[in-house]
Amino acid sequence: MDVKRNNILKNISFFKNFSDKTIGVLNEKSQIIDLEKGGMLFSNKDKADRFYLVTKGWVKLYRETIDGVQSIVDILTTNSVFGETSLFENDAYPFSAEATETAQVISFPLPVLKKEIENNSELSMDMMRSMVRHKKQQDQEIENRTLQNASQRIGCFLLRLVDQEQESEFVIQLPYDKTLVAARLGMQPETFSRALNKLKDQININVVGREIYISNLQDLTKYACSACSSEFPCRDMKS
Amino acid sequence: MDVKRNNILKNISFFKNFSDKTIGVLNEKSQIIDLEKGGMLFSNKDKADRFYLVTKGWVKLYRETIDGVQSIVDILTTNSVFGETSLFENDAYPFSAEATETAQVISFPLPVLKKEIENNSELSMDMMRSMVRHKKQQDQEIENRTLQNASQRIGCFLLRLVDQEQESEFVIQLPYDKTLVAARLGMQPETFSRALNKLKDQININVVGREIYISNLQDLTKYACSACSSEFPCRDMKS
Repeated sequence: MDVKRNNILKNISFFKNFSDKTIGVLNEKSQIIDLEKGGMLFSNKDKADRFYLVTKGWVKLYRETIDGVQSIVDILTTNSVFGETSLFENDAYPFSAEATETAQVISFPLPVLKKEIENNSELSMDMMRSMVRHKKQQDQEIENRTLQNASQRIGCFLLRLVDQEQESEFVIQLPYDKTLVAARLGMQPETFSRALNKLKDQININVVGREIYISNLQDLTKYACSACSSEFPCRDMKS
Repeated sequence: MDVKRNNILKNISFFKNFSDKTIGVLNEKSQIIDLEKGGMLFSNKDKADRFYLVTKGWVKLYRETIDGVQSIVDILTTNSVFGETSLFENDAYPFSAEATETAQVISFPLPVLKKEIENNSELSMDMMRSMVRHKKQQDQEIENRTLQNASQRIGCFLLRLVDQEQESEFVIQLPYDKTLVAARLGMQPETFSRALNKLKDQININVVGREIYISNLQDLTKYACSACSSEFPCRDMKS
């Protein structure tokens, strides 16, 4: 048993309550997959027999309309797990997965996960807790797409990235390029540009490439959070 | 032990895998609550110590912005359970609950549910399956609020109510009044009226009070589902 690799998994939130035995089995049966930008991992409705951990880069989960328009389900980076809910969905993936830049993922067999969940009540409580947290984020997202305008939604996205330990000017590094931020927020690139300009008019922010400088956090909070049922800081709502 | 009351619970999907002992305890500690139209059951962030089963009428779950604008989380009727996820949310309700018409609910103690989930792996697998189904509905809702226009969203709502066993003209009974349907879809009443009129122009439907007559289901499907990543009939997506 490779103790070092097992310890790496145990330090990732998703795996922390797995039994040592299962961690060992998962590692033995794991596969490392390197993806180029645009590389597809699987497609919506493909048979699901593995789940995935991102170890490098970014992976986009999405669905497509019959007209080929994409809807982003999530954009995930290092230490995020996906595909695990297929266990409960007739063993089919409910979305497609594609690398948005060079990425690396590790895949594990779903049946091992299923057995562990059935036998480990601490783990299943953990998973339910995580699902409920995700449900709350989704309720909030549904609300935001209805009550917030496009500029407020961009403001809300930025606020979730703010490191509040900073004291004076806040600098935010966008996690991925603006086209992808727009897609994540369900906006056309043109709508995103217009809304970002409107946001700059409303409050004092400065955009330099992927960096965004916010001089007054309260102005941004007042602007974005007035059309939201949560209060800033919304700790459960991290992007 | 009241066998008849226990059997009633066992026939409701949420309770079907509960142990007989727990069903008995839940029934013993249950409380019947009658609500007038507009009657509040609890408010967002109230301490949660009970969960609820709707036995009559309709109950609206919602959140409010600081400006008092409501966002509907769900609208539930007979045999629906709510408040149970508070177990995983620091024992606070994540929304407010109010009767939209005369309603009756039964409340049960959350600690009894928690104990049962911890000790009954079949039940916890059931709950996870139900949470994952709900997550898929929410992903779809987020997508629809972005990719479908207001008329398509009304069409989509109607399609979920269609009884496909009918053969010729389809008659749909709206489950609640149009103002509430609008709120459920995240629309202002005026937007809803305009969008419903546009839908009538696009396809052949006839609206009489709460009844809606659809002469050609394919026309409606073609119109609403073209901007959606699911295919009709979307069985998992029942409203």
